[in-house]
Parts: sequence; C-alpha cells; structure tokens
Amino acid sequence: MTQRYYIGKGEHAVGEIVELVPDEAHHLRRVMRAREGEHVKVFACGREFEAVVSCLRPRVRLILLREVEPVPPPQLRLHQAIPWLRGGRTDELVQELTQLGVETIVVYRARRCVGLGDESKVARLQRLAIETCKQCERADVPEILCAESTGSAIEMLRERAAEVVVLGERVAQPRLSQVVREILARSSAEGDPRPTLGIISGPEGGFEENEWAIANVRVASLGERIFRADFAPIAGAIVALAGAGDL
Amino acid sequence: MTQRYYIGKGEHAVGEIVELVPDEAHHLRRVMRAREGEHVKVFACGREFEAVVSCLRPRVRLILLREVEPVPPPQLRLHQAIPWLRGGRTDELVQELTQLGVETIVVYRARRCVGLGDESKVARLQRLAIETCKQCERADVPEILCAESTGSAIEMLRERAAEVVVLGERVAQPRLSQVVREILARSSAEGDPRPTLGIISGPEGGFEENEWAIANVRVASLGERIFRADFAPIAGAIVALAGAGDL
Repeated sequence: MTQRYYIGKGEHAVGEIVELVPDEAHHLRRVMRAREGEHVKVFACGREFEAVVSCLRPRVRLILLREVEPVPPPQLRLHQAIPWLRGGRTDELVQELTQLGVETIVVYRARRCVGLGDESKVARLQRLAIETCKQCERADVPEILCAESTGSAIEMLRERAAEVVVLGERVAQPRLSQVVREILARSSAEGDPRPTLGIISGPEGGFEENEWAIANVRVASLGERIFRADFAPIAGAIVALAGAGDL
Repeated sequence: MTQRYYIGKGEHAVGEIVELVPDEAHHLRRVMRAREGEHVKVFACGREFEAVVSCLRPRVRLILLREVEPVPPPQLRLHQAIPWLRGGRTDELVQELTQLGVETIVVYRARRCVGLGDESKVARLQRLAIETCKQCERADVPEILCAESTGSAIEMLRERAAEVVVLGERVAQPRLSQVVREILARSSAEGDPRPTLGIISGPEGGFEENEWAIANVRVASLGERIFRADFAPIAGAIVALAGAGDL
C-alpha cells in the first residue's frame, strides 16, 4: 500500500511545495523511514496528489507532482451526533464512522452521559480521524465537533443537513430504512445529486424524556432489536448509506 | 431489566420443571443472587417463558409459569461466514452479529487467515452468543459452526440459504444493497414470507484468487470504501437487514 500523508486544510495545486505538520513528518521519517526522492501520496479536503519528498530536515517538504483521482465520498452526505461513551468506545466509533465516510461527527454531552469528554479530547479524536483516513484511503477528513448538550448537537446537525433523525429504540415509528427512503425520494424530486442527512443517537442510559422532543426532529426506529449505545450509530450510518446505494 | 436465563435446546411447555446448566445456575445464584420464589424469564429456541425459582440447591430448578411474546427475529433469515480474526475481534463480531439477529455464524479458516481457531474455541463463542442473547433480549440463540475451509463454509451457508453472496472490495459488481433488493424481490414473488441469505466475507489479507470462484456464489460490493476484515461482516449484515425492512 502506498504511503499516504495528510497535508492539512486549504487549497493545494500541482507544483506546490508543502510542509508536513509534526505528526505527519514523524510518521514519514521515523515510522515509514522515507528518503529524499521517494514518491508518496498526500491528501487534503477530498483531493489527492502524488508527491515526492524533497527535503527531510529540519522540516519534511514535499513537491506535489500530479493530482490523482481520490476514493469518491458517499453520495449521501452524512452528519452524525454521538454521545461521549464509556471506555475507548468513543474512539472506536470515530474510527468506524470515518471508515464509512461520515462527513461530520459531533460528540455531545447527553443528559445521561456516562463517558465524559471536552474540547481537548476532540483534538485527539480529530487526529484519530486523520489516521483512519490514511488507512482507509479516504481523501476528505471528517470534521469532529464537540457539543455541550443534546440540543446544541441537533442544532449543529441542522446547520449541515436538510433532515435530522433521532434513532429510537423499539419505538412505534417507521424504521430508519423507510425514513431514509422518504428523505432520498424528496431530495431526488428536488434534483439534489448529493442529499444530506443528520443522525443523532443516545447514550448508554438512553435519552431523558423531552431531551430532544423540543427540537422538532423525526424519530426513526432501528426495529425490534436492542442495540448498545456504541453500536446504534454504526447501524444508523450503514442503513442510511445502503438506502442511498453507497453500500 | 428482568433477569433472563437460557434453558437450552429442546421443546418446553408451561408447567414443566427445568434445570439450569452450571453456567446459568452460577449466574442466577452467585451473580444475580436470586432466591427461591423469585420470578425470572427464561428462553430457548425462540420461545420465552416467565418462570419461578423452585429450588436453588443442589441444582437450580425453575417452573415455567406462562409463555410470553419474545422479541421477534428479523424477517430476513441471515446466515454468515466470517474468518478467524486476530486478537479478540472474532469474539466481538460474534457479539455484534448476535445483536443483529443473525441465525447462523460459521467461523472458517480462510487461506490467508491470520487468526486461528478450532472446535474448542467454537464452544466458547457459543457461550458468548448465549450471553449476548441474554443481554439483547433475543430469544433464539444463533448456531455457531466451525469450517475448515472457505469452500466448506460456503457449503454450510448453501445448506441454509437460498442465495450466498461474497462481499468483495471495490469490485466491479453491483452493490450489496442492490443484490439484496433482487434476492428479496424474487423471494417475495415466490411468496416466501421469510427469505434467507448467506453472506461470506474475507480475512485481513483478503481472499486468494479462486478461493471462492469455484463455489458459484454471487459477488456483491460494499462500494468505494475500504473496510477492515472485522467491519465488513457488520456492514454486510446491516445492509441486508435494512434491505428487508428489519432496520
């Protein structure tokens, strides 16, 4: 597998000389032991380039040689809100949602959150998302955001997605696959080639009553089964992507 | 949450006195500290009963009081073959596929298998599946089987499912969601209320050439993304269940 490095946000062009940030430079020099003149791939904001290492010290510099076709993102632009979870499960979820191509991951503090996290942990999750992109060949890095409440998490999803869906457990509501079909049919009727969807799921202890009822979102059911809080977001993302034909 | 215990295979009826196997007896006596006269739930082969503890020692005995409605299984009867995986990932996959309602899990030795397992490990996985059923309120326990090769794993799926699909990576094949739609349309046309599907996915190193080509199965793609060997089976199961309206 070709080595891939992240060159950060911003516009890039063939011929440009880019400097790697310290984490990426460490990976190239120490882990991969790349040499001057070696060809690697770099990616940023959905674009991917073939590049050559032009300088290793004091900073790693690369020259962008030519643009290559990146792995295309899913047709469905998915934005998800997940609660802080116990143990390492928030980390694993960020990795799995990144593999799936989710565009934004809002980690929020639900009323009954067991796990706790803050802005400082978000920086670590962002780094983890970049690492995952390198491995799964994704060229656009998901944005990791932090919300102080369920309401503000829903607001963040609303700013990004035409529809926001809450995953409910065994609720007398249509199944998520059905809700996704309706949303996609509407997008298609409106001629939108890349529909958007926001999905929020609850913490280990479940939502409190009215925790999201005020927010005027649609509720969708994941059916008769009981999913753990660290599995429902994965099920939600896959059902939505399958509905859009991405899987 | 009500305590739930597994009373093993075989037919059961209201009024019957059942004896718990040692693992379940330990759970009831030592972990849950249940007493004589306490009401619990028990399940076996898709049926669920309310029961009362009639005797704690030397063996735990329960009297089945009345049959209750179990969580219904998915409409799609799903049988999956997964390779032995590194570390604890086979365990986690068995738990996740059990949560999803998969009916049979065949753990097989692929040619490039990194993880290794045998019949003795299968007994432990079966126990793990029962534990998961207790937690996720599933009343039918998935059967865990062991296959010595990819070919025999596919045979086992074929004995149980009308169609067997291999998950391919970025292959020029229809997406799994599309393949599932076709299979379900055919089942529906044939008036089958509970269609069956077999899914097999490959090991960390991928399939060898012709490893399954001889077996005359359909290939389906999980799209443009690259999934790790421990994630593809989950994606496959969820896409299939969503296609059948179970999620």
